[in-house]
Amino acid sequence: MSQTTYFTPGPSQLYPNIDGFIKDALDEDVGSISHRSGAFKSIYADTVSRLHQLLSLPENFHVLFLGSATESWERIFNSLVEKKSYHYVNGSFSKKFHQYGIESGKESIKEEAPFGAGFDVDTTKIPQDTELVAFTQNETSSGVMTGVEDIEKVRKSHPNALVAVDVVSSLPYPNFDYNNIDTLFFSVQKCFGLPAGLGVWIVNDRCVKKAEELKAKGHQAGAHHTLLELVSKAKENQTPSTPNALNIYLLSRVLESMLEKGAEQIRKETDEKYELLHQLIAESSFLSESVENERHRSKTVIVANTAIEPSVINGYLKQFNMAVGSGYGSYKTSQIRIANFPAHSTAAIKELIEALKKEELINQPA
Amino acid sequence: MSQTTYFTPGPSQLYPNIDGFIKDALDEDVGSISHRSGAFKSIYADTVSRLHQLLSLPENFHVLFLGSATESWERIFNSLVEKKSYHYVNGSFSKKFHQYGIESGKESIKEEAPFGAGFDVDTTKIPQDTELVAFTQNETSSGVMTGVEDIEKVRKSHPNALVAVDVVSSLPYPNFDYNNIDTLFFSVQKCFGLPAGLGVWIVNDRCVKKAEELKAKGHQAGAHHTLLELVSKAKENQTPSTPNALNIYLLSRVLESMLEKGAEQIRKETDEKYELLHQLIAESSFLSESVENERHRSKTVIVANTAIEPSVINGYLKQFNMAVGSGYGSYKTSQIRIANFPAHSTAAIKELIEALKKEELINQPA
Repeated sequence: MSQTTYFTPGPSQLYPNIDGFIKDALDEDVGSISHRSGAFKSIYADTVSRLHQLLSLPENFHVLFLGSATESWERIFNSLVEKKSYHYVNGSFSKKFHQYGIESGKESIKEEAPFGAGFDVDTTKIPQDTELVAFTQNETSSGVMTGVEDIEKVRKSHPNALVAVDVVSSLPYPNFDYNNIDTLFFSVQKCFGLPAGLGVWIVNDRCVKKAEELKAKGHQAGAHHTLLELVSKAKENQTPSTPNALNIYLLSRVLESMLEKGAEQIRKETDEKYELLHQLIAESSFLSESVENERHRSKTVIVANTAIEPSVINGYLKQFNMAVGSGYGSYKTSQIRIANFPAHSTAAIKELIEALKKEELINQPA
Repeated sequence: MSQTTYFTPGPSQLYPNIDGFIKDALDEDVGSISHRSGAFKSIYADTVSRLHQLLSLPENFHVLFLGSATESWERIFNSLVEKKSYHYVNGSFSKKFHQYGIESGKESIKEEAPFGAGFDVDTTKIPQDTELVAFTQNETSSGVMTGVEDIEKVRKSHPNALVAVDVVSSLPYPNFDYNNIDTLFFSVQKCFGLPAGLGVWIVNDRCVKKAEELKAKGHQAGAHHTLLELVSKAKENQTPSTPNALNIYLLSRVLESMLEKGAEQIRKETDEKYELLHQLIAESSFLSESVENERHRSKTVIVANTAIEPSVINGYLKQFNMAVGSGYGSYKTSQIRIANFPAHSTAAIKELIEALKKEELINQPA
């Protein structure tokens, strides 16, 4: 393993002992066993059971595996929306989620907030015939978070719509009441500290029912990775096509380790590191808050305006074997993004803060 | 690494030194680097360049990365077929390829041969308005191969149709003239000896032109992994969403090793091992040929009828740390499948043959 600590917002720092988990996977032939074998089914079952436990997921939620979280967007439109979806858009990923709806031939409506801002869900107007309301709970591009309570408020005011939540770079931090969510998805290279190449899509029985209704109406859900096919295979601890079994195994091991710590402790440490990072921003002469409203600041992806270019900051951080993320898209040179994931220990975050405090050194050649 | 040698048809035996390649990947932070970074672009470029070299791919072919080879089926219909495709079906995978066409809303026609049989392409009737002719060049379920010369014959008689070839479990063995193929795809857990979780889709400029024409006509190609988006990103050595960078890196290392040996030598060794395995079948009292016509026998997935159940054979093979594949689907108990991939050395194949020759022992408890 290299000595660099990646505070980039994903791909990011690998979870502690990933190299050991990979060695175990090779010893157990995870790369060679059939995805129809008992050995694979047992890995699938362990991963699902540990995820249920960590998130306190109700029984009626199914865990499905895709190639990426991005793929979930498409599968949601194919299997769960006949005509109309509604999207809270406040950054590049929520914008793409909405765009996927349009490209999937749906009437996808959006409520858009400026980059860096959140929503007042009390004032947004969701049409009564909306079939699905989409949240990007944690905008990895802008560092804006939508609160769990805001999602629950929308659910209560629109009980007939399915609620879909992109938790790509926040889960397991948000402490949801899963009675208020129907489907959610994440990718493993963010908070779970794994190499990329696996998306996890979670759906409840309401989603299954909706997909069945659309199928009965003759709706085309596409050919590959339809919700009904994925759920049917998941019930046998299998996938329709050969999956990324290595990553499913590694996820199972990371979940095992997270369960030893417990979800509450992970949330507590995330909050503590979040406070330390915002204290740094408050005291820094070159960093400033990019998300004005504190209530909308992401707990797991901290975004700050920077007067020193991210490439200069990363050039300086190299001597300490650290790297932060640059801003997203057009904010590439004017913002930095710092991931605050479970793989980032409090000690590591403190070291990063100490390094970034030496302001006079950052503009010097390393 | 375990001591077992997997002769299963995929997932299968890992390529020699995969554990070393994974260690290098971890040392080089392949699991943490951004998929927009120069480091990733360089891995992408290396992989593509080595694949071009190994296959002698012409310049106008683009290499794209998906979650699985199965995903390629769907992407082909979404981006390359407006109405009509034609399918040679002779086993479970070619059947699914055809079925994906139907489920994608296309008029997908099939010519079907019985399980274990191939085609006489001179007698098949392909409608003149067929937009795409689909071959499953190597049927992993039945061990039936369609010869390179048969594919070329169809191309010449139907020059207006795109030719799509599933080479999931045969590439790099088939020595194609790529002027006669427009798109092909494989998964890395077969002949390339990698853990599953990556599909490789190769398309030429004729495919790009067709996708552009369909787009101009207002055709819906779906939202995720459209051919045009994948090709546009591939030109910058990138992917639209975060890819399985670890597997792309590992593929690059396997290709490097294959290039040292050379495609011709790999084909020669494959032919030699194929001969040895069919000699075993000819001499065995419990195995018999399942593919009658020698011309249609797969070089890389050898399928044989067996009078002893595969589970009994594998129980016996355990003491030698070996495993073969059982038959596919309804042939689970009456056929075995033996992979003859580059990761299977001639010495390993000879050891398997020696073990299977001890017929009197196989039905005894190990």
